[in-house]
Amino acid sequence: MAKPEPVYLGVDIGGTKVAAGLVNAQGKILSRARLPMPGRGDASAALAAVSAAIRAAAAAARGRAIAAIGLSSPGPLDPRRGVVLNPPNLPCWRDYPLAERIRQAHRLPTRLDNDANAAALAEARWGAGRGYHSVFYATLGTGIGAGWVLGGQVHHGRTGAAVEGGHVSINFRGPRCACGKRGCIEAVAAGPAVAKRARLAARRQPRAARRLLALADGDARRITGEVVGQAWREGDALAAAVLQQTAESLAIWLGSIIDLLEPEVIVFGGGMGALMAEWFPTIGERLRAWTINPRAGEIPLRPARYGADAGIAGAAALCLP
Amino acid sequence: MAKPEPVYLGVDIGGTKVAAGLVNAQGKILSRARLPMPGRGDASAALAAVSAAIRAAAAAARGRAIAAIGLSSPGPLDPRRGVVLNPPNLPCWRDYPLAERIRQAHRLPTRLDNDANAAALAEARWGAGRGYHSVFYATLGTGIGAGWVLGGQVHHGRTGAAVEGGHVSINFRGPRCACGKRGCIEAVAAGPAVAKRARLAARRQPRAARRLLALADGDARRITGEVVGQAWREGDALAAAVLQQTAESLAIWLGSIIDLLEPEVIVFGGGMGALMAEWFPTIGERLRAWTINPRAGEIPLRPARYGADAGIAGAAALCLP
Repeated sequence: MAKPEPVYLGVDIGGTKVAAGLVNAQGKILSRARLPMPGRGDASAALAAVSAAIRAAAAAARGRAIAAIGLSSPGPLDPRRGVVLNPPNLPCWRDYPLAERIRQAHRLPTRLDNDANAAALAEARWGAGRGYHSVFYATLGTGIGAGWVLGGQVHHGRTGAAVEGGHVSINFRGPRCACGKRGCIEAVAAGPAVAKRARLAARRQPRAARRLLALADGDARRITGEVVGQAWREGDALAAAVLQQTAESLAIWLGSIIDLLEPEVIVFGGGMGALMAEWFPTIGERLRAWTINPRAGEIPLRPARYGADAGIAGAAALCLP
Repeated sequence: MAKPEPVYLGVDIGGTKVAAGLVNAQGKILSRARLPMPGRGDASAALAAVSAAIRAAAAAARGRAIAAIGLSSPGPLDPRRGVVLNPPNLPCWRDYPLAERIRQAHRLPTRLDNDANAAALAEARWGAGRGYHSVFYATLGTGIGAGWVLGGQVHHGRTGAAVEGGHVSINFRGPRCACGKRGCIEAVAAGPAVAKRARLAARRQPRAARRLLALADGDARRITGEVVGQAWREGDALAAAVLQQTAESLAIWLGSIIDLLEPEVIVFGGGMGALMAEWFPTIGERLRAWTINPRAGEIPLRPARYGADAGIAGAAALCLP
């Protein structure tokens, strides 16, 4: 009898929920379990929730050997030591040796990395970046995270804090970011920034904003990044103008990324990432003005393979040799 | 009798001169030869000048075996194929297989890379970045070049065009760079930008600019980056204000470099680099506001070991295994 193929257990830890799943060596998700995460409770309650999600997902293994457990968590964290440092979204854990605790509880090799790095690795191994030596991944949502996989390995930098791509500033006189810097791409092009720009435009041009406002129940404060995307898909000109500006900002940012790293492929994940992937032709066009690389146009821009499963797949990808 | 230590022949090719030298395995420069470079002549005249410089430097070898020849040239070029593409400073060479021609002429293994990458490698192997796994090098002069050495290897990227650090934009509304982008750190903080800022300040405040103007023979148009540095060393307040602003720009830029790459050490070379190295305390202080990395202060900022010899040492460093 052939030895059964190993499977990996990927755990996607968030501020409010924890999801776990079995993933095979081809990156296919075989099972999913989801539990609430008591992120503001005590450290051991949060650990218990992670362990319960692991057990629930592991139940689907049925005889297949689970080779390792991967943990994807909000940062900052130390991937080398497997220690969660002080994530704003998980205040229960401070300098918490999460990987070691899970290793002890489940008696399996355990790896930890931040959510963007893990998702980047899943895309590089199994997804839109497969087959490339150098994969730059960005996840666009309420924030902008990034990861860079070079030769199959996440680029961690000196302490594991590298590739905080969302905090590259494109304008030192730009809007203040939550991190304290000015003009970070996160402060300019993530969901809340897009929504804010649309809200300002709606206030200035209420007539042009009728569709946007209708989708937000008539309340400009309810305009979100999703609402802007929806309005644009319905042909709204104001939403298109806002997203055009977002595409320009992303082109400026990617221009600097390309001039520094010259990756072989660029992958966009996250909810806003899926929206901006529809703008790749515009981003590619504008990129010409924002890189000195004459062959930048050869670098493909691709939507991520993994959507809501990016965390599980990413965590599982950490387990691969 | 012990086998004599190998030596390397490093060639620093510029638009107007070519310098060659023998370099030992510890990065010590053993000989130097310098010739004019007919960069606007024909391709074979330029090749002949490079070959003549190699022969002149090689004459000092006296029995020591020359292991290889390294060539440092202005870019753009393809380091993998050893081909010079279309350098503005060397219009005589277009898609020119320089490494192959030198290999044939001198019957030695030959490597080619651009000047900033080569100098970065020399600093990583033998200089201010020695002993570090990840070395970010910037050369500040009439332009800003950069190189990044990771695990002993220059990061080349997809086509060899990576780490064009001088063209990372810190302000997309900033001054137009020669490359066409706006707000590149080169357009803001290289020698000509510093000189321009000083000239503007001198025109606005001629009284405060007396020392600056005196050093420039009373002619604001003669204010250069060197003049600003000299005035500052003599205690001039206007020059200090200009350099303070330059330090701030460099801090903004390094903040993004750290947030992306998180190198282990940052090395400044070039004439303006030596000047700005005197501003490291200010740059380090301002850096805190421009990186989200809480441990960025642990990353040393260092002046380069090699000054005028950066090209020879860099080219020789390309020869090492």
